[in-house]
Amino acid sequence: MKTRQDFEALDTADKLRALKKQFVLPPGVIYLDGNSLGAMPAATAERTRQVVEDEWGVGLIRSWNDANWIDLPARIGDKIARLVGAGKGEVIVADSTSLNLYKVMSAALEQVKAQSPDSQRRLIVSERENFPTDLYIAQSLAQQHGFTLKLIDSSDELPAVLDEQLAVLMLTQVNYRSGRVLDMQAITAQAHAAGVLVVWDLSHSAGAIPVDLLAANADFAVGCGYKYLNGGPGAPAFVWVNPRHADKCSQPLSGWLGHSAPFAFTTDYQPAPGIKRYICGTPSVISMAALECGVDTLLAAEPLGGMAALRQKSLDLTNAFITLVDERLAAEFGVRVASPRDPALRGSQVSLALAEEMDGDAYAAVQALIARGVIGDYRAGKPNLLRFGFTPLYLGFAEVWDAVEHLVQVLRGKEYLQPRFQKQGAVT
Amino acid sequence: MKTRQDFEALDTADKLRALKKQFVLPPGVIYLDGNSLGAMPAATAERTRQVVEDEWGVGLIRSWNDANWIDLPARIGDKIARLVGAGKGEVIVADSTSLNLYKVMSAALEQVKAQSPDSQRRLIVSERENFPTDLYIAQSLAQQHGFTLKLIDSSDELPAVLDEQLAVLMLTQVNYRSGRVLDMQAITAQAHAAGVLVVWDLSHSAGAIPVDLLAANADFAVGCGYKYLNGGPGAPAFVWVNPRHADKCSQPLSGWLGHSAPFAFTTDYQPAPGIKRYICGTPSVISMAALECGVDTLLAAEPLGGMAALRQKSLDLTNAFITLVDERLAAEFGVRVASPRDPALRGSQVSLALAEEMDGDAYAAVQALIARGVIGDYRAGKPNLLRFGFTPLYLGFAEVWDAVEHLVQVLRGKEYLQPRFQKQGAVT
Repeated sequence: MKTRQDFEALDTADKLRALKKQFVLPPGVIYLDGNSLGAMPAATAERTRQVVEDEWGVGLIRSWNDANWIDLPARIGDKIARLVGAGKGEVIVADSTSLNLYKVMSAALEQVKAQSPDSQRRLIVSERENFPTDLYIAQSLAQQHGFTLKLIDSSDELPAVLDEQLAVLMLTQVNYRSGRVLDMQAITAQAHAAGVLVVWDLSHSAGAIPVDLLAANADFAVGCGYKYLNGGPGAPAFVWVNPRHADKCSQPLSGWLGHSAPFAFTTDYQPAPGIKRYICGTPSVISMAALECGVDTLLAAEPLGGMAALRQKSLDLTNAFITLVDERLAAEFGVRVASPRDPALRGSQVSLALAEEMDGDAYAAVQALIARGVIGDYRAGKPNLLRFGFTPLYLGFAEVWDAVEHLVQVLRGKEYLQPRFQKQGAVT
Repeated sequence: MKTRQDFEALDTADKLRALKKQFVLPPGVIYLDGNSLGAMPAATAERTRQVVEDEWGVGLIRSWNDANWIDLPARIGDKIARLVGAGKGEVIVADSTSLNLYKVMSAALEQVKAQSPDSQRRLIVSERENFPTDLYIAQSLAQQHGFTLKLIDSSDELPAVLDEQLAVLMLTQVNYRSGRVLDMQAITAQAHAAGVLVVWDLSHSAGAIPVDLLAANADFAVGCGYKYLNGGPGAPAFVWVNPRHADKCSQPLSGWLGHSAPFAFTTDYQPAPGIKRYICGTPSVISMAALECGVDTLLAAEPLGGMAALRQKSLDLTNAFITLVDERLAAEFGVRVASPRDPALRGSQVSLALAEEMDGDAYAAVQALIARGVIGDYRAGKPNLLRFGFTPLYLGFAEVWDAVEHLVQVLRGKEYLQPRFQKQGAVT
């Protein structure tokens, strides 16, 4: 059995440990929820002050040019591109993940309809366990465009659905509940062989695992700015379109800043070349500035091995956590690892299921942990899950040890039965 | 002829003068561009610091409940409702004006199609001079839904288009170039009499003139957060739907936070009751917090007479400006007021056209003024315009005098001919 000293030794040997200094975290907190909302980079406080007080307060309207506000969507997009294997000029930051998904799904469906107007390809397939906003957006577009949305229970069913009926496969690479990773390269290749377009949601993979959109020859991708990219609550999202589609497809959210000449103020919409047509309205400058600081914390890892090094540390962290759960929580409390045990199939999170008879206590158990300073979250479902994100940028091994120790004490002391932990907030 | 002393006396008598203390403006600047980007409220610096460093940095994910982040769209919406004559629970803040327009236009078109599937009503009408993003969004939706977008050259043509072919009239109450105001109540009544729905864009009216959506019995409205609401660059926008439509219409940007039970994580989209279904993705918290400070600067005028008092001061300011332009710029330089002279038809801005032979110098003239600290903006068109916004919250009468004096000097000294003022930025 490992000891806390063993975990401290891992921290000492950790070559990425210095990256933690980029963040401000409250004392006494072990933050295992960077998969839901990334921690605050130290630089963000000064940068948001600067954009508010100097650029807006003093520069006023002039800052659209003088502070290059107008370039923020493309400039931050180029930085994110380095994290997801995309090229310069291929990614822009805009709006929310839901909205960007609406844009790319619309473009994909239009492309299918244009290329084969009489085709049988009128099906969209996704996973039942995909994050709900993806399903809601696909549902809306399927109805609008006369397509059918079919949900599969597992990616094992993929080979069976890749046929001449299928138009678009819409998948999230890392599942939000279980943390399971799909093989982007293999699935994209299989889909293309069947004439199917693939839309990837990278919300739980960008900044969490190495992603190589161009190597996978993917079609479209979107992702979230406030999880592993540390962009702040509700940060803007990003969107990527393979250059082979970018000028071919239009998208229906045709706001003025996606126009090829927005300041000509013409009456007819002419989409900008390339990815810029995926911009819609005026960018949210303060939120974008905060996002840029978050993305920069990941780029700071580039001299230390970049996403590959971060991925290795993430796996070391989640492997260590799983080992401790097996050793200390499985037999005594019946806690089960609900994420894939194969590291290759696991993102940067581990979800736990309580013993069946304790399933209804999962929410309260998370609250009891939070009261102890161990912040994870709860995701309803079958079973209900305790979800823990392991962000290699700011998490250490001793913290993993301490988190498990706290969970042991919550379960042993039945702290989750305390009434104060039962009351559910608006957000779970 | 009036003197600067006369204008100083107007400032001394101004009962709203104390409201200016709510803002931080750089010394030496006369800011006449609050119609494009409102000035920074002093409270915003501390509030954004708090939301970043305390709520995000310390509260982390817990702040969705503990700091009520989840309530921001509705809470700020309720505040904006007080400025536009809407009821509590009828307005939410979300996304951009373009996106909110897409939502309400979609809802309006769906409603027309549902109510009269075989109807001849397949026309959308707007003004050619409407802000381009409105036209681009309408163009996209017209194509999607099989409608035709028809542009009229002037609101004088409205009576002629209000017939059984027309489905939706989409108008911006205050024109972005000329500042001309449309009579919301009269036009809405005429449209309803013809069985036509009306979508109002309040981008240049919310916070600029009194608006009474409920008294006008309007159908749908959207508006901008970063102009007269002082929400900061690219601030989130707002959307209002008349309660008689709110539960009847759906909107296609069906993100998870518009769901009736987002944290149940179900696979089927069930729109939230009322206006909340117009929320899409996760709200941009930092930008929303900044917007709330901006809206609060307008609510601070409520004990002093509210929007009616602000409107009176705004008219006093624009009347004073027009008088000075007539006295000092018309005869000598051929400068012409391009905004309505009738105060009832004019928003909170005045646009000027240079003499015909100087039309090509309008951009450089604005730059020469900016170099002197008088910040207005330029809008391309026929003719090109120098556009000046007069924000009664933070503008005084002596500043109006000084702005005109600077313009006299720019024109008399032909400063606009200097090469440094010719070079156009990305944003005009």
